[in-house]
Amino acid sequence: MRVDGQHFRTVWMEDGVVRLIDQPKLPHSFGIVDMATHKDTAVAISTMIVRGAGAIGATGAAGMAQAALEAPDDGFDAYIAEAAETLRNTRPTAQNLFFGIDTVLAAIAKAGDDRALARKYAVEAAQGVADDDAACCEAIGQNGAHLISEGDGVATHCNAGWLAFVDWGSALSPMFAAHRQGQKFKVFVDETRPRSQGARLTAWELGQEGIEHYVIADNATALLMRRGEVQLVIVGADRIAANGDVANKIGTYPTALAAADNGVPFYVAAPTTTIDPNCPDGDAIPIEERGAEEVRYTWGQTDDGQFVRVRTTPADSPARNLAFDVTPARLIAGIITEKGILPATREAMLKAARRIG
Amino acid sequence: MRVDGQHFRTVWMEDGVVRLIDQPKLPHSFGIVDMATHKDTAVAISTMIVRGAGAIGATGAAGMAQAALEAPDDGFDAYIAEAAETLRNTRPTAQNLFFGIDTVLAAIAKAGDDRALARKYAVEAAQGVADDDAACCEAIGQNGAHLISEGDGVATHCNAGWLAFVDWGSALSPMFAAHRQGQKFKVFVDETRPRSQGARLTAWELGQEGIEHYVIADNATALLMRRGEVQLVIVGADRIAANGDVANKIGTYPTALAAADNGVPFYVAAPTTTIDPNCPDGDAIPIEERGAEEVRYTWGQTDDGQFVRVRTTPADSPARNLAFDVTPARLIAGIITEKGILPATREAMLKAARRIG
Repeated sequence: MRVDGQHFRTVWMEDGVVRLIDQPKLPHSFGIVDMATHKDTAVAISTMIVRGAGAIGATGAAGMAQAALEAPDDGFDAYIAEAAETLRNTRPTAQNLFFGIDTVLAAIAKAGDDRALARKYAVEAAQGVADDDAACCEAIGQNGAHLISEGDGVATHCNAGWLAFVDWGSALSPMFAAHRQGQKFKVFVDETRPRSQGARLTAWELGQEGIEHYVIADNATALLMRRGEVQLVIVGADRIAANGDVANKIGTYPTALAAADNGVPFYVAAPTTTIDPNCPDGDAIPIEERGAEEVRYTWGQTDDGQFVRVRTTPADSPARNLAFDVTPARLIAGIITEKGILPATREAMLKAARRIG
Repeated sequence: MRVDGQHFRTVWMEDGVVRLIDQPKLPHSFGIVDMATHKDTAVAISTMIVRGAGAIGATGAAGMAQAALEAPDDGFDAYIAEAAETLRNTRPTAQNLFFGIDTVLAAIAKAGDDRALARKYAVEAAQGVADDDAACCEAIGQNGAHLISEGDGVATHCNAGWLAFVDWGSALSPMFAAHRQGQKFKVFVDETRPRSQGARLTAWELGQEGIEHYVIADNATALLMRRGEVQLVIVGADRIAANGDVANKIGTYPTALAAADNGVPFYVAAPTTTIDPNCPDGDAIPIEERGAEEVRYTWGQTDDGQFVRVRTTPADSPARNLAFDVTPARLIAGIITEKGILPATREAMLKAARRIG
């Protein structure tokens, strides 16, 4: 997607270096950071320099390719196995991360004992994960654009835009497509505490594309629905269980409840790589609990341009920081994928799930 | 309630001056600010130096008493009428504000043309509003304490503690009472963006009383319920319509939806002065829309102790800032009042509503 007119992807590889848009700095400044080794890349995932389902999938795949390039001929397999473990442990909830890592592992395995070939396959597989992600997201946009009608208010949650993928995004992709088709609508962007991905990233992406949008507090979506200002919800997904339950950024489930109570259709947009056919239902999805400091503090820019954090809580008040919640399939009108809009049912999920190899 | 062992009320009058705890500075510093005239007092309400249903009711009453003290003998009635209008226009949603103002107006009217008597009655009536608020809130605590069982997780929203009233609070009063009775439980305090009354004020109040609590993002309550960590919700109210619909801080309605979806009882705590018998239902309650800057920025303390605001959104992204939402009566298990726990029904509300005079 475009940044000040120039095309960027969220993550890409150059000569064994993983290059990433520095997302924590957005929207206050736009920059690129370089990860020299797979261990640096793992830190970039766990500290959320890169975040979002597809983007960390492509970054995990790129990290595995880095590991293949780094691995000594002697002890190659052990090095690869350890690197896979390191990358896998960065974020526990995201299905695309595992999909990206496993895709590169499968490519490496195909090379047998030929280390040079394994490295070549790994780099190609990582590139393939990225290209596939971008193509899937573009298709999601085409498949979902017709859901948006002229004059609609569309609500989304967190950032499932192009910064959360390699390009285009999932939940925002139908909005980008509809906007480029000339449709006029507005988007309600909830800020998505504690890391403010909505206020920072989704608002920035929509602004870059010239789409009318309003930032709101996380708790305001339900009232806007009750007032008739929201006609459609589209959110992303970090993992979709076999029964259609969806794990996504904390706050997705109450948004779905509000949509159900007000008769507003609630859609999830995700590439089919997000489906975990081995996960029976939402209760089986592990929920990441992150550090309390993210809740106790807010990062942002002061009026004189400094980028600082401020604490809102008392100095000695503890906090809990659950990063994802689970939206039951019963609340979901459909899942917008690169294969079309699917019902959130076991049959549809198992049919659509993509297996590696 | 106690601040570092000393007893304070949220608002009180001394020699015609209205003294207020400076709430925007909490929890970072504790201080008292003085409002010399009713116009200063009105500004303190509209800028939310004082906020919360009962506290602005008592402050509105005190402001009216100030107006009576200020009003010239010649043109007394016109001055009083204009002051009432000024105070009434500070916050459009809060029923207690109107109750406080109208109670003092009724006392002034009883004095006929005797200006000295009118001033005396006004000051006494304002004191009565404050004392009555404190007594009602203490009774709410006694009436609601038994709802909390040993080991419970209790969720609340915003600040309906003693800072939101003159003393004791509404939603927090049963927690203070249960804690003083020796009950052990923990409270989930959602931060309540955009003004963070939960993270700043509720967490501070609970900390001062030594009650175990955890600050969470506004969007995390639903997941905690799904995980079985929340057994009870108690929130406050800014206005209760005749049919039992409740206007309260934005985010109350989605919390009630999450409680309903998880079988968690959802209680509202409020003195019966909060009931507006003339308001047929929630749709008739005017919802205050505040400035966008509150959403675009977060106030807090930097690591080096400065009190600043940081912007999370892009510089040019607009925001919407609806301050209250409406929770339908069907989602409410009961309304904890000074008269006992009432069902959220038209019959119970009209019977309990307090009329002035």
